[in-house]
Amino acid sequence: MPALFPAELRQAVYLANLRLVEAGLVVGTWGNASGIDAATGLVAIKPSGVPYPDLRPEHLVVVDLAGTVVEGDLRPSSDLPTHLELYRRFPGLGGVAHTHSTAATAFAQAGRPLPCLGTTHADHFYGTVPVTRDMLPEEIAADYELNTGRVIAETFRGQEPLHVPAVLVAHHGPFTWGTSPQGATENSVVLEAVAQMALHTYALAPATAPLAGPLLDKHFLRKHGPGAYYGQR
Amino acid sequence: MPALFPAELRQAVYLANLRLVEAGLVVGTWGNASGIDAATGLVAIKPSGVPYPDLRPEHLVVVDLAGTVVEGDLRPSSDLPTHLELYRRFPGLGGVAHTHSTAATAFAQAGRPLPCLGTTHADHFYGTVPVTRDMLPEEIAADYELNTGRVIAETFRGQEPLHVPAVLVAHHGPFTWGTSPQGATENSVVLEAVAQMALHTYALAPATAPLAGPLLDKHFLRKHGPGAYYGQR
Amino acid sequence: MPALFPAELRQAVYLANLRLVEAGLVVGTWGNASGIDAATGLVAIKPSGVPYPDLRPEHLVVVDLAGTVVEGDLRPSSDLPTHLELYRRFPGLGGVAHTHSTAATAFAQAGRPLPCLGTTHADHFYGTVPVTRDMLPEEIAADYELNTGRVIAETFRGQEPLHVPAVLVAHHGPFTWGTSPQGATENSVVLEAVAQMALHTYALAPATAPLAGPLLDKHFLRKHGPGAYYGQR
Amino acid sequence: MPALFPAELRQAVYLANLRLVEAGLVVGTWGNASGIDAATGLVAIKPSGVPYPDLRPEHLVVVDLAGTVVEGDLRPSSDLPTHLELYRRFPGLGGVAHTHSTAATAFAQAGRPLPCLGTTHADHFYGTVPVTRDMLPEEIAADYELNTGRVIAETFRGQEPLHVPAVLVAHHGPFTWGTSPQGATENSVVLEAVAQMALHTYALAPATAPLAGPLLDKHFLRKHGPGAYYGQR
Repeated sequence: MPALFPAELRQAVYLANLRLVEAGLVVGTWGNASGIDAATGLVAIKPSGVPYPDLRPEHLVVVDLAGTVVEGDLRPSSDLPTHLELYRRFPGLGGVAHTHSTAATAFAQAGRPLPCLGTTHADHFYGTVPVTRDMLPEEIAADYELNTGRVIAETFRGQEPLHVPAVLVAHHGPFTWGTSPQGATENSVVLEAVAQMALHTYALAPATAPLAGPLLDKHFLRKHGPGAYYGQR
Repeated sequence: MPALFPAELRQAVYLANLRLVEAGLVVGTWGNASGIDAATGLVAIKPSGVPYPDLRPEHLVVVDLAGTVVEGDLRPSSDLPTHLELYRRFPGLGGVAHTHSTAATAFAQAGRPLPCLGTTHADHFYGTVPVTRDMLPEEIAADYELNTGRVIAETFRGQEPLHVPAVLVAHHGPFTWGTSPQGATENSVVLEAVAQMALHTYALAPATAPLAGPLLDKHFLRKHGPGAYYGQR
Repeated sequence: MPALFPAELRQAVYLANLRLVEAGLVVGTWGNASGIDAATGLVAIKPSGVPYPDLRPEHLVVVDLAGTVVEGDLRPSSDLPTHLELYRRFPGLGGVAHTHSTAATAFAQAGRPLPCLGTTHADHFYGTVPVTRDMLPEEIAADYELNTGRVIAETFRGQEPLHVPAVLVAHHGPFTWGTSPQGATENSVVLEAVAQMALHTYALAPATAPLAGPLLDKHFLRKHGPGAYYGQR
Repeated sequence: MPALFPAELRQAVYLANLRLVEAGLVVGTWGNASGIDAATGLVAIKPSGVPYPDLRPEHLVVVDLAGTVVEGDLRPSSDLPTHLELYRRFPGLGGVAHTHSTAATAFAQAGRPLPCLGTTHADHFYGTVPVTRDMLPEEIAADYELNTGRVIAETFRGQEPLHVPAVLVAHHGPFTWGTSPQGATENSVVLEAVAQMALHTYALAPATAPLAGPLLDKHFLRKHGPGAYYGQR
């Protein structure tokens, strides 16, 4: 039987998971990245609780958008329902990543959104990275991971999720996404970097205001959208 | 004469000690990990003051629960009496670890317990990591390391020590434990990570409240206990 | 046709770019270093958006001081117009570097200059590293990168730029320079180190005054200028 | 002609210098370590401004206690007169080290001594690591490095320098010493670690009091002096 999930994309999801480790964003088995095959709607994700040094591309678990396993012998990451909800609600995603990276998690634990304080942030996130509302006891008691995805989608209601491809789940930590698994994990890396910068910025000047519109527009739009001129053609 | 201490467990204790170095938790010869053989009650521990690069499995010192050396030519870690008191008082332990990791030690030095501020903490520690009371001059003057174990046990009176497998010894630093040497050192690694997150969280929001019950229960119990569904079966 | 840009200087610019990575100052494709050939006025700079692991000396883009590409198939760094303005306005420069290093960027985001708080700073920067004024919407809308160079030059009006070879562009991050590409990147490295020290110093003593004149003079002048006695002859 | 400086001690001084790099305490060419041969009073020290990767044992410069070079073709570290003054004033020293390590330098820049806040500190330093007084303009103008040694010696007047083998030179950074070059650099490593812990401790509890006498005595004396029982015999 031929593989249902494209081999190249499987490799990309595998490398995206390793990138989280290489960038120092995960401890132990924390964190996970997934990727979706637009043609079939199948999603490949890290198996649950497998140490990264042991991880091989064939360990990835492939599921459909309803969560039914179609390839793989291991249990998928316990965060799978969150990933699937994001793929269902945010069309255009190619990958999702989740970490407990230190500085971004501190903002999530403090219940504080991460405003755009400089051009580093503006180059990747078109404004404030929001924090979700607290989940209700009944949202936690049943279908917790699915409901985590739902409160993320609620947070982005009326917004283009690829303009700010990151969220801070309150008391928990960041989820990021992108048009590919690699894009999702790079947004995890950048989010942690700008969260560190923001921690230091607030230590120096607690009342620092978010970036004004012109500079925010300039930096986001020189890298994204029709007028972009950053990088190679 | 056959070895009294199981070779596989000796190797596990050896690797647990190296893990403390790999995770960046120790400077110089600081820190130590031990493991207990449930069948015999024998404990293997790092020798005192031996640099980690020179450490070999055969250097580990094996003692009985009264502290009598039964295998090994070197002196055991000076913290041995603390480890032994924890094994005697907390049935079910398989390993104990001690570090002076930076952020956890800062909480110990500040005399502040480490409340559960997020799900990273809740995944491993079922509530506040407590700080011990100050030791009395007479507890310091004689049997200091034994008394360190006693104040730890006193701190956990009436509590299941495997629910919160870590303590901050006031003015000193963290001890952690687990059902294996590897589990004990992983708790040292996680404790340092959540202490770093807590430092940043308090910098952003000094009055952050501990996690409410439903989220604490959800995260601890999805990884621990009969209803756990994290990891592979 | 012989190469227009000296091979040895090309190699130096290449290594200066790699040095930014090695020193932990860049994430992803951020940051760039350039060098100028004094004989011809030609400038070699990193291409835009190329990952550092893929970068080869032949990828560098060579332009004249007006920005016309004379060697290379790739697009130059989008920050090129800033570099060129600095070469045009600050005679004597041999190299320019730009990073988003964490602590220096935090000062830029906070809109705070970085005063000389100790001899580490004084050894490399002869006084406060200034922060630029905010750019006007019209300076951002058109020729943004060129105008970034102009506000830097405006900040140094009447000052010798090699005495304080660094600036914090408000809401953005640091640019540094030197008499060579290597000198420029070393100033990026040192700037980040002294910014980290300053963050901690202000945490301990928010009202710390800048270094008094005699110690500032002593340290800067023992490494720079006619009476220097640091290093080998 | 036979070498005047013992080859084994030369190697030890060389390795002590490399240890500063390995421990992440130096940037560029900052920092230096020296060692003294008790038999001859000759001192070997790092040459000035030589990058660590290029450093070889034969590059070390050997001087007598008056500073006259007796072996080596390079100029000694510009901090040599400070080292020599410490050897002359503090009998029993075997090595001296100097770094600009981040957290210790922050205390020096803030003009704050580093009190003993926990047992990690007490294991190595028998009380507060002091900060020197500010140097006078005339002490800076002439014989600056010698006068740096003098204000250090003044700071320790009436104290045993091996009980607290470290000092914070105001606005500058730490010097440490020990009975060997290796001991001196290990004290640099530990000083930076306890300074980091202290930064975090003060962030959590600004009014943290220094360790009380019994715990300070216990920890310092179990590693130092006639009743020591830490390490191997």
